[in-house]
Amino acid sequence: MANSIGNLFKLTTFGESHGIAIGGIIDGCPAGIDLNLKTIQKELDRRKPGQSKITTQRKEADEVEFLSGIFDGKTTGTSIGFQIKNTNQKSKDYSHNTDVYRPSHADYTYDKKYGLRDHRGGGRSSARETANWIVGGAIAKQFLKNIKINAFTSSVGEIFIDKPYQKLDLSKTENNIVRCPDPKTANKMIDHIEKIKKQGDTVGGTITCVIQNVSVGLGEPIFDKLHANLGQAMLSINAVKGFEYGSGFCGAKMKGSEHNDLFNKDGSTKTNLSGGIQGGISNGMDIYFRVAFKPVATIMQKQNTIDSKGNEVEMQGKGRHDPCVVPRAVPIVEALSALVLADFMLQYRARK
Amino acid sequence: MANSIGNLFKLTTFGESHGIAIGGIIDGCPAGIDLNLKTIQKELDRRKPGQSKITTQRKEADEVEFLSGIFDGKTTGTSIGFQIKNTNQKSKDYSHNTDVYRPSHADYTYDKKYGLRDHRGGGRSSARETANWIVGGAIAKQFLKNIKINAFTSSVGEIFIDKPYQKLDLSKTENNIVRCPDPKTANKMIDHIEKIKKQGDTVGGTITCVIQNVSVGLGEPIFDKLHANLGQAMLSINAVKGFEYGSGFCGAKMKGSEHNDLFNKDGSTKTNLSGGIQGGISNGMDIYFRVAFKPVATIMQKQNTIDSKGNEVEMQGKGRHDPCVVPRAVPIVEALSALVLADFMLQYRARK
Amino acid sequence: MANSIGNLFKLTTFGESHGIAIGGIIDGCPAGIDLNLKTIQKELDRRKPGQSKITTQRKEADEVEFLSGIFDGKTTGTSIGFQIKNTNQKSKDYSHNTDVYRPSHADYTYDKKYGLRDHRGGGRSSARETANWIVGGAIAKQFLKNIKINAFTSSVGEIFIDKPYQKLDLSKTENNIVRCPDPKTANKMIDHIEKIKKQGDTVGGTITCVIQNVSVGLGEPIFDKLHANLGQAMLSINAVKGFEYGSGFCGAKMKGSEHNDLFNKDGSTKTNLSGGIQGGISNGMDIYFRVAFKPVATIMQKQNTIDSKGNEVEMQGKGRHDPCVVPRAVPIVEALSALVLADFMLQYRARK
Amino acid sequence: MANSIGNLFKLTTFGESHGIAIGGIIDGCPAGIDLNLKTIQKELDRRKPGQSKITTQRKEADEVEFLSGIFDGKTTGTSIGFQIKNTNQKSKDYSHNTDVYRPSHADYTYDKKYGLRDHRGGGRSSARETANWIVGGAIAKQFLKNIKINAFTSSVGEIFIDKPYQKLDLSKTENNIVRCPDPKTANKMIDHIEKIKKQGDTVGGTITCVIQNVSVGLGEPIFDKLHANLGQAMLSINAVKGFEYGSGFCGAKMKGSEHNDLFNKDGSTKTNLSGGIQGGISNGMDIYFRVAFKPVATIMQKQNTIDSKGNEVEMQGKGRHDPCVVPRAVPIVEALSALVLADFMLQYRARK
Repeated sequence: MANSIGNLFKLTTFGESHGIAIGGIIDGCPAGIDLNLKTIQKELDRRKPGQSKITTQRKEADEVEFLSGIFDGKTTGTSIGFQIKNTNQKSKDYSHNTDVYRPSHADYTYDKKYGLRDHRGGGRSSARETANWIVGGAIAKQFLKNIKINAFTSSVGEIFIDKPYQKLDLSKTENNIVRCPDPKTANKMIDHIEKIKKQGDTVGGTITCVIQNVSVGLGEPIFDKLHANLGQAMLSINAVKGFEYGSGFCGAKMKGSEHNDLFNKDGSTKTNLSGGIQGGISNGMDIYFRVAFKPVATIMQKQNTIDSKGNEVEMQGKGRHDPCVVPRAVPIVEALSALVLADFMLQYRARK
Repeated sequence: MANSIGNLFKLTTFGESHGIAIGGIIDGCPAGIDLNLKTIQKELDRRKPGQSKITTQRKEADEVEFLSGIFDGKTTGTSIGFQIKNTNQKSKDYSHNTDVYRPSHADYTYDKKYGLRDHRGGGRSSARETANWIVGGAIAKQFLKNIKINAFTSSVGEIFIDKPYQKLDLSKTENNIVRCPDPKTANKMIDHIEKIKKQGDTVGGTITCVIQNVSVGLGEPIFDKLHANLGQAMLSINAVKGFEYGSGFCGAKMKGSEHNDLFNKDGSTKTNLSGGIQGGISNGMDIYFRVAFKPVATIMQKQNTIDSKGNEVEMQGKGRHDPCVVPRAVPIVEALSALVLADFMLQYRARK
Repeated sequence: MANSIGNLFKLTTFGESHGIAIGGIIDGCPAGIDLNLKTIQKELDRRKPGQSKITTQRKEADEVEFLSGIFDGKTTGTSIGFQIKNTNQKSKDYSHNTDVYRPSHADYTYDKKYGLRDHRGGGRSSARETANWIVGGAIAKQFLKNIKINAFTSSVGEIFIDKPYQKLDLSKTENNIVRCPDPKTANKMIDHIEKIKKQGDTVGGTITCVIQNVSVGLGEPIFDKLHANLGQAMLSINAVKGFEYGSGFCGAKMKGSEHNDLFNKDGSTKTNLSGGIQGGISNGMDIYFRVAFKPVATIMQKQNTIDSKGNEVEMQGKGRHDPCVVPRAVPIVEALSALVLADFMLQYRARK
Repeated sequence: MANSIGNLFKLTTFGESHGIAIGGIIDGCPAGIDLNLKTIQKELDRRKPGQSKITTQRKEADEVEFLSGIFDGKTTGTSIGFQIKNTNQKSKDYSHNTDVYRPSHADYTYDKKYGLRDHRGGGRSSARETANWIVGGAIAKQFLKNIKINAFTSSVGEIFIDKPYQKLDLSKTENNIVRCPDPKTANKMIDHIEKIKKQGDTVGGTITCVIQNVSVGLGEPIFDKLHANLGQAMLSINAVKGFEYGSGFCGAKMKGSEHNDLFNKDGSTKTNLSGGIQGGISNGMDIYFRVAFKPVATIMQKQNTIDSKGNEVEMQGKGRHDPCVVPRAVPIVEALSALVLADFMLQYRARK
């Protein structure tokens, strides 16, 4: 198991969906950072279940409790321990899963790898873990201060925003429950998710993230390129199947004469197909990337599957699950971005 | 700078395109592995410049010399040092670049980050570095033995293979200079690259990689998921803009009822949209992923740019560059895959 | 800050002496290890304050609560989170210290390094942290099973055991409050500590640790030699000033013809001045080493010192402190030894 | 194998005593450091064999060749690759060792751990490796600039300098072949080593190292304390059996009222039994420590031993070995100190 992310600004986590608590340790945060604890809780609230009609109706308080590393409202430079108690495990929701391998879940691989599994929900593989990342990311955001990180839902199923992010008002992302800054598209997405939910089905989508005000020089080639570590972090999120930055997969269809970003006299570029990163190092332009989420695997329909003895069994999701994970994943994408950037910021400082 | 990849099977590298030599150290390779040094050189030959009419005409011997860690044809368990001398630097090809920031290259970001740059070619940011990865990967392949890793060119510009990899004979990849196992598509790709080359332009493309015979259990969640580390490695390759595995970005458009991979009685799955990985751990099915490459930034056309003083200047590529980097990147994708898998194999063993 | 120890079997910790709780995360413990939680608590009890007349009279329950990673009495292979609540902080004991730099404490260096300090006791620099290590070590011990780790008090001030460890019955270490397996010497040590305590003074001492049943092959040269990592771990303990293994500093006075350990036919050696380690790798003989502890810096006598403004002030220790830290440090030495060995055991397995 | 030292300023090495070359990669050295390559070679010359009548008469050119990371006399911020060719392997000197386990060498443990060994001399376990450390340390020294690191021979066998380092003129260390700054004691040491050599025997000794001008704040508790990492580095040196800093093992005999370092108004201390480090962090006073070296195991006398089949055999050292390793180890102690300090300096900067 590898339960840490980051080199100098490092988050290490623990916790199962149905254990006593989840939590983590943030190691390496500089001393003297003013922390607004309410802002941290607010970030957790953006992720928590039961927010709206298009998310799971499961309720969790998701209140973070800090145990160390903060004194008089400031970080002390020592490791910051925190926990979030599991208040609403309802393991009976999962009792029907005992010993059954849910299709496209991690049940089978965890059982084979570890020789046992905590069958109460996803155990360690549950997305509940991402609440820990929100805490780490919220602290990283407060350390980064001037850097703006804005993620939003850019597509749900076949519905997508048909304009570049520069034409969007990213301050509007939180105005609707699907977290899409384009109101018209947002409404279509919400309708679609509700329809899918009624069918007992689920649907995938994508999140776009835009990071602004990053100075030139973040990123540590050859093997810790800025976009490579962002990609690694995003691919750690449950259900993520792809990552692209700048021109991404579209760029693979283009010609060099179309794709090159020509310079202005001040070192900025006229276009930004590079996505704010050259050679693995930020160039001062906006960083942007896109993350693909598969549809949630737990559906409210009957499915054939097997149990741990190889018996064929029929199962049906009964827990309270999200029809589309994307809206709740928006703060997760931001949190991981902040963790990655904070780590690179410290590395940058180390050698300046 | 972070010049290492891997935790237990670790490659650390050095070298600039126009220095004396490039090279590296492989640390953590188990003792007693029989090494076929010719096979390693053969892998290097697949990557080397000057192979065909659609690659750069620059010539490099690219002969690897091992300095330690091998005795009587076997690994000794100690660190394996190696170097590849730079025999054909032709720095005069680059003399016109002095002080000019080439568009969509790393010149500007390296200069700003490090306060100086080795302007003879890309220096450390040059793709010459990838020869080191081939050496590391070739040793990892010999360690992994039973695992089959096959990458191939799946698209060039708008031309793509229009069938799933299961319908392809991957043993034919090396039969043509573009490394596309579908002969008809290969010919179209070659023609297209030649056309683009005549225009003094370049073109992007994608590589698909299929990994077979991986047993269940490789990958270390939460933060070293198998696909996350594969993604990180692929995003380290020069010119890569995106990574997706299994259903990838297409999966984001699907419904759960379509996307779930139902089990057979033996634990294998009827479909494999998951791409051989569940919860970050291999499930025994084929692992497959796709990598997007932007077009090479050096084009043989006039471009406006700036120099380090902010003067506007006109430049034109004069070096010997690839019109399309994808065919030569096929062995690089395989090499990095092998390094990532070897690392996970050791981690797997540690805890069994 | 670096709050982790170990590469594959890793403990990360948090917590201040006067915060809400201390705790940690154990990452990398293999799945399926049977855990006896009572044994873990028993180890904590060996370390806890208030055990006897020669330790501090401060009382702490020191009850460990596990939050994750254990299911049905077995490790699950996921990260193990735990906490120990601080029940008896009595920060008023420390109120007189506000802003005063206690001589030979970490107050001054923490304040200068971090720009602030938690002046309620030692904060993060307090030896309270070592309770976390006991928990990690107790789990490591249960993983290691067949390996025997026995530490004991070998000297207090000028009083020392005047025979080699082979002549001692190490099962008697817990029979007296000073944890010295030689009853006569133990009594002398206890008397001496009581005398020192009455003077309001403190005294140093040494701990010897013997590790038996380690198979050949643990240790990872060049830079993670078995004894080097043991040394690093021991030097992490508060108040430790020195580490030696095998012949140690005495060996530096010897001749090669005296010092060499000649082989028996089975690969064991006739003598063991090497201390069970050759070239950084265990050779199957007993591993033994010695650790030097300075006297506790907090004394119940008046001392002149300065405050953070540079004013000269007079202070006197008023908290409840140990006159000699050595007896309570015995389980700490064992716990860190277990952590180091567990880490090397996993590394060994990875490459076999 | 773990062939790297350091986190941010990292040296990774390779090479066997009788292979083609040894060498390494320095990763993380900041860009723009002026490097005096002659000074680096000079440090190598201090370590190299054949310097004087009291060292081995084996000759090695030990010329370092830099392959990357340096441009126009400055570091570029990229990884610095280097090699030192083995010019005088004389493996015939070692042919009599084939298959014999030399007493108190690493032959036995390497063979058992790796299942094979390079029996031409010590292979990877040879002290030849330390030449790599000199190169890394020499670069670290040039990065650290204002910090003064002075090691010297403080004892040989029973002969020791009988005054504190403050009474010595450390600039005189290089004035004699035993590297002892006290001329009288130096002469005694040299006589003693010559006598021991004539007996075909070897002798141990200690090195003291004094580090001056370190600002307050270096060191990363809890697990990367300044003295703990210094200790780990020193214990990596071949033949080292012990490490102590400040009052060391003597401190264990003292009382708190004697041992505490009282403050001056400026934060400096009246005494320095702490050895310049409090709580794992430098306090601005001189850092000093002592390292114990056992006698070299290769002696020119007949010894009984075994071969790899368990046969009893008689052997006698025939190579050209040092009667006392301490004088040549002085620059090694300095080099590792510089590497450790450079690493902490970068970590310090990262969080300021």
